[in-house]
Amino acid sequence: MSKIRIGIVGYGNLGRGTELAIRQNEDTELAAVFTRRDPSALKILTRGVPVYSVEDIAQHKEDIDVLILCGGSATDLPVQGPKLAELFNTIDSFDTHAKIPQYFAAVDEAAKKGGNVSIISVGWDPGMFSIQRLYGSCILPQGKDYTFWGKGVSQGHSDAIRRVEGVKDGKQYTIPVESSVEAVRNGEDPELSTRQKHTRECFVVAEEGADKAKIEAEIKNMPNYFADYDTTVHFISQEELDRDHSGIPHGGFVIRSGRTGEEGETSQIVEYSLKLGSNPEFTSSILVAYARAAYRLSKEGAKGARTVFDIAPAYLSALSGDEIRAKML
Amino acid sequence: MSKIRIGIVGYGNLGRGTELAIRQNEDTELAAVFTRRDPSALKILTRGVPVYSVEDIAQHKEDIDVLILCGGSATDLPVQGPKLAELFNTIDSFDTHAKIPQYFAAVDEAAKKGGNVSIISVGWDPGMFSIQRLYGSCILPQGKDYTFWGKGVSQGHSDAIRRVEGVKDGKQYTIPVESSVEAVRNGEDPELSTRQKHTRECFVVAEEGADKAKIEAEIKNMPNYFADYDTTVHFISQEELDRDHSGIPHGGFVIRSGRTGEEGETSQIVEYSLKLGSNPEFTSSILVAYARAAYRLSKEGAKGARTVFDIAPAYLSALSGDEIRAKML
Repeated sequence: MSKIRIGIVGYGNLGRGTELAIRQNEDTELAAVFTRRDPSALKILTRGVPVYSVEDIAQHKEDIDVLILCGGSATDLPVQGPKLAELFNTIDSFDTHAKIPQYFAAVDEAAKKGGNVSIISVGWDPGMFSIQRLYGSCILPQGKDYTFWGKGVSQGHSDAIRRVEGVKDGKQYTIPVESSVEAVRNGEDPELSTRQKHTRECFVVAEEGADKAKIEAEIKNMPNYFADYDTTVHFISQEELDRDHSGIPHGGFVIRSGRTGEEGETSQIVEYSLKLGSNPEFTSSILVAYARAAYRLSKEGAKGARTVFDIAPAYLSALSGDEIRAKML
Repeated sequence: MSKIRIGIVGYGNLGRGTELAIRQNEDTELAAVFTRRDPSALKILTRGVPVYSVEDIAQHKEDIDVLILCGGSATDLPVQGPKLAELFNTIDSFDTHAKIPQYFAAVDEAAKKGGNVSIISVGWDPGMFSIQRLYGSCILPQGKDYTFWGKGVSQGHSDAIRRVEGVKDGKQYTIPVESSVEAVRNGEDPELSTRQKHTRECFVVAEEGADKAKIEAEIKNMPNYFADYDTTVHFISQEELDRDHSGIPHGGFVIRSGRTGEEGETSQIVEYSLKLGSNPEFTSSILVAYARAAYRLSKEGAKGARTVFDIAPAYLSALSGDEIRAKML
């Protein structure tokens, strides 16, 4: 049986994670990596797989079944997404929540024009968390949703720290407030402010001679990023940062607290939680499972953009309907 | 907009839960209840809704969009499922895992013959737990699945206790072994025996003058039900049983412990857990959400049997694709 030939666009953390995830799925193979860098300078892990310039990607239309776009949502995907959806079946992890409707429309138009299937906003949030929010709200229509993130590294907040004057390096952890999570789990349905849901912990390497008090104040008062949170700042050495904070763990919880019965007297709690050793490796594992779904949908003649909401769970599996009914139902 | 007209077959705990769940969904309405009892003797909660004999159900084909079968898997559904799938779109909670393939085939044939959609084995296990097992195995192909049930009332084990000579009444709780759950959550991937996964706690009302030591021994040594577990037996009064053990709580966990990375060095833990105040009210809430899916699929011209694996999450929602993308993704 021929394997699903996957192309990767962008070889950062997510691209490397995708390469590793493809190895774990026997029915998929890495066909090519596309980069904006000089292809001859890029060393990838998988032997014998070509690296091409993303400029030449249209020439490889016949060699790729599904393209996984591993660029960022801020500037890469808004351009690449629609452009590549016209040429290939695509999967991406577009995660700018507010812009999803317009991104979906642009990708949908391109994918229909090209006769392809594109599944957008795949990953864990948006993605698996969204699915859990949807299932929760449909099953328990009288109820409240809670999403907590962490404990984990926020790339955006770490970047924000590193832009502060006098900061050489830094890492930020988002941490759910345990007492709030417990209140939700107990069915108390609390109203939670931003500050009551998460705290932020920063590990900062200051430049020599920098004013640490000033750095700390600037971080803690940074609007949007830190001002609305209880933030802790620890100054550590570069060695400590490299030794203790080089991983990219993450995780979180989606909790649906619902009520059933004649007068809503019965509490029903559904919780989905993730404890991830590596955020990009987990996200890319999801991307590859949805690449299988896009491939199968495309073979069936489907066209246009989809989200995780539109994909029946069975499409993610390499097993047949008979097999999953017998083994997993 | 006209509502989805739902019929309930069987008015036990699940049927009553379905009646309550329909009230929480504005796009559904209860059209009729069908019973094997004398219809005139059955009082239901919803005023103005007719109760009919299940013998006459074929006469009401035009009044029902989806029929929810609330009978048991042992004797009711194997007969009712295929028979009614030929006449109506149906939802059921068939949960005899080993017989699912043959039940699916029988319902599929009948539903295709009648031009209907039937979603079988809906609920939380099989059902939501199955979906989580499937997502987990597809996303983290290198990994292990763990399902724990409880703390909750097992109807089958409670029935088994009540069949013991000298027992007047009784209730059995299935309880996950906390240390095993913790080991799984910590990514230790333990091999767990039946005894290491769950304990069983029994609350028993003995008949006057009964030999309690004999009852306890008989329960603890009962093959299949108790012999493979650490079982505790408490003797209490009927008053205590009625006061403290009248609810039907349940719950459980599905945990996927996976490994990613170059050599599987990264631990990734996905956990789905339920803490249910009422097992039948939660199960029936799921049945109603899938009734919406069956209705929509049928309107689209689909025919035949389905399981929860075949239903895209969006089909469960009364909201449009635009709305769920904007609000829940």
